[in-house]
Amino acid sequence: MTYLSYQSTSFALIMNKPSLRNWLIDKPSASPESLIVRCLRERGVLSASQITRITGLARSTVSTALNGLRKSGMVIESSAHHDGARGIGRPAATLTLNPAAGTCVGIHLGLDEMRCVVADVSHSVITEQTIPMGLDYQPQQAAQLARSAIAQCYEENGLPMAGLLGVGVSVSGPVSREGVVQRASIVPTWAGVNIRDVFGPVLEQPIFADNESNCSAIAELMWGAAVGQDDFVLFKIDLGVGGAIVQHGRLVTGIAGGAGEFGHISIDPGGDLCRCGNRGCLELYASFARPLEQISRIVRRPVTMDEVIMMAEQGDVGALRMIEDTAEFAGRGLGLISSVINPPLIIIGGRMALAGDILLAPLIASYERHTLIKSRDIAPALRTRIIVGKHTENDALLGAVGLVLRHNSRLQ
Amino acid sequence: MTYLSYQSTSFALIMNKPSLRNWLIDKPSASPESLIVRCLRERGVLSASQITRITGLARSTVSTALNGLRKSGMVIESSAHHDGARGIGRPAATLTLNPAAGTCVGIHLGLDEMRCVVADVSHSVITEQTIPMGLDYQPQQAAQLARSAIAQCYEENGLPMAGLLGVGVSVSGPVSREGVVQRASIVPTWAGVNIRDVFGPVLEQPIFADNESNCSAIAELMWGAAVGQDDFVLFKIDLGVGGAIVQHGRLVTGIAGGAGEFGHISIDPGGDLCRCGNRGCLELYASFARPLEQISRIVRRPVTMDEVIMMAEQGDVGALRMIEDTAEFAGRGLGLISSVINPPLIIIGGRMALAGDILLAPLIASYERHTLIKSRDIAPALRTRIIVGKHTENDALLGAVGLVLRHNSRLQ
Repeated sequence: MTYLSYQSTSFALIMNKPSLRNWLIDKPSASPESLIVRCLRERGVLSASQITRITGLARSTVSTALNGLRKSGMVIESSAHHDGARGIGRPAATLTLNPAAGTCVGIHLGLDEMRCVVADVSHSVITEQTIPMGLDYQPQQAAQLARSAIAQCYEENGLPMAGLLGVGVSVSGPVSREGVVQRASIVPTWAGVNIRDVFGPVLEQPIFADNESNCSAIAELMWGAAVGQDDFVLFKIDLGVGGAIVQHGRLVTGIAGGAGEFGHISIDPGGDLCRCGNRGCLELYASFARPLEQISRIVRRPVTMDEVIMMAEQGDVGALRMIEDTAEFAGRGLGLISSVINPPLIIIGGRMALAGDILLAPLIASYERHTLIKSRDIAPALRTRIIVGKHTENDALLGAVGLVLRHNSRLQ
Repeated sequence: MTYLSYQSTSFALIMNKPSLRNWLIDKPSASPESLIVRCLRERGVLSASQITRITGLARSTVSTALNGLRKSGMVIESSAHHDGARGIGRPAATLTLNPAAGTCVGIHLGLDEMRCVVADVSHSVITEQTIPMGLDYQPQQAAQLARSAIAQCYEENGLPMAGLLGVGVSVSGPVSREGVVQRASIVPTWAGVNIRDVFGPVLEQPIFADNESNCSAIAELMWGAAVGQDDFVLFKIDLGVGGAIVQHGRLVTGIAGGAGEFGHISIDPGGDLCRCGNRGCLELYASFARPLEQISRIVRRPVTMDEVIMMAEQGDVGALRMIEDTAEFAGRGLGLISSVINPPLIIIGGRMALAGDILLAPLIASYERHTLIKSRDIAPALRTRIIVGKHTENDALLGAVGLVLRHNSRLQ
């Protein structure tokens, strides 16, 4: 429904509206103006009638509040048309927050690099930057480099720092509600680190943080395959296996931030040792790390996931077999997840999702074989749908922006 | 916090209050009286200050409404003291719905018998009846026999049928939100049957229905080990393995009623065929059906779960080994469930839970070995607690009553 576009225009006119920060971050109130602003912040672009429906306010109340918000320059008419506004007749005017009214930053802490993106409140990406870090980089160093990178981005694009509403951080490991990174063995140097304590004092901004896969789910929810879906499971197939659960439009975190850790479901307690310290984790079978090794061995050079997908599309039997075998295990894992929560929608993410039907067809067949409730036994409305995601490369980074826009996972 | 007691006194004075049925079932309103009545219906016994806290109403509003409810005879002082009311000084007066104000019926559809219980709105069980049915009994026959049994119970106890608020039905299989029994192979004769269509016209009452394990979870939530807990997982170890998930005080059902079907998580796709049609389901390893066969073979006579627990308590090595092996698989299954939803509390139910620590100690050790987030790595507040349930024998039946009292799973 909403869009996220990359734009390169420089931002000369930034209105510095301290009231926006007040409304969105510091003391959100229940006034119609505040509700409308929060609604547009979460969804990006909406028509007045959609705002009326979502907020539950009276049509006249919305109309009056929108007039005020338009006059103050907080809300503007959008050039991009909302998907839902397409139809017969004149398209309804769509509204968005004034891009000049505020910005937010998303940071993704990768294995050996840090990525950083600046977006405005109308959900447009202004600029993006990658900072190479080397393996096992230290939290303090990351915070300092993030500060410099943000300052540089804002200066180069003529953005005032005062318009920054908050910083979202995506972490490759489970994060507790208080912002502490759990499980030492997955991201060694960040184990036990409190994201707020590290980034808060250095960046001097409200800090939001969540697990990488949870951020990916936020990106799919706000701009991707899950727009309009309140309940779904994300299953990422990449060099690892990640996951997230969204229920009633909110992430399920679990008591210690361990919900959705699908890659570490142990399917063979006697199997190989996993980086998490357990044995036979699903990630060892349903990620694409081992298949890449196998294919590289056969073709006698290192291959990437993109190449393998291309080989499969051209009919290479080995590439097809590796994708099918991965799909078999992913389907088995998802069958098992379905016996636990039986979700209405499963979105396959990660870079292997780019294989499309080559991956999806055997995955769905495997899922059907291993799950309790078979599609053929039940009405279509009760079936779990399995589709591929929309964001596969930069989903965690976009999701970190989404944490700020949705005011999700704020660390107090 | 609340109690469920069995009482045998005959019920001579039943006030027929059509307004209670109105408030509770037909058109619940947001009036203070309606909120208080629903609150007492869900919790059983509460003090005025607890009612104030739970409803969020002003103290004076609660006081005025309670006066009116007392005068009309709808609410009375309770002789049983609420657990939470114990303390120094004079115990606070506790209130309950007048037992004479209404009754409800719970029915459990067992494999070869139907059990039926009548309880009043103060959460006291008035009478219970078991109807032997033989294997593969027909839905229509069950509805007719339930009607006779209910009529008999009400007549014998001098209860007016007009006071009956609704009938809750517990089914040994997944039930969709519309009340259709899913998965043919688990309860053959009930597959595809709509519980409302079968019981509604014959009983002429509002019908509530849910899966057996979901009913068990309701019983633990209302009267058992989960009182005051809004989020937990129930894992039942009996002749089968069942389960349920409660989040924010509500059951997670899944799109087709398949959430919490822990017994049918496939842990070995090449394993033995399960009654559900899949292979290597957790139920084959973590239920106590096979251990009973093994022990019966050794002692050359059929043994029951109670006997095996007694043998284990007396140090019988074979009985201990069978319980430990079951615990190992149950812990493995729960470790896996925790990698999906990471719940704060796991309650072990089913008749094997009566083994207490003999089962729990190896189960917790196995859980720790197989789950991603180890207790020793995290603060005590973030750890998943594993305890045994309070109701193990009649939990599904009590839960069926709970469906009506909580107005849960009503079939429209």
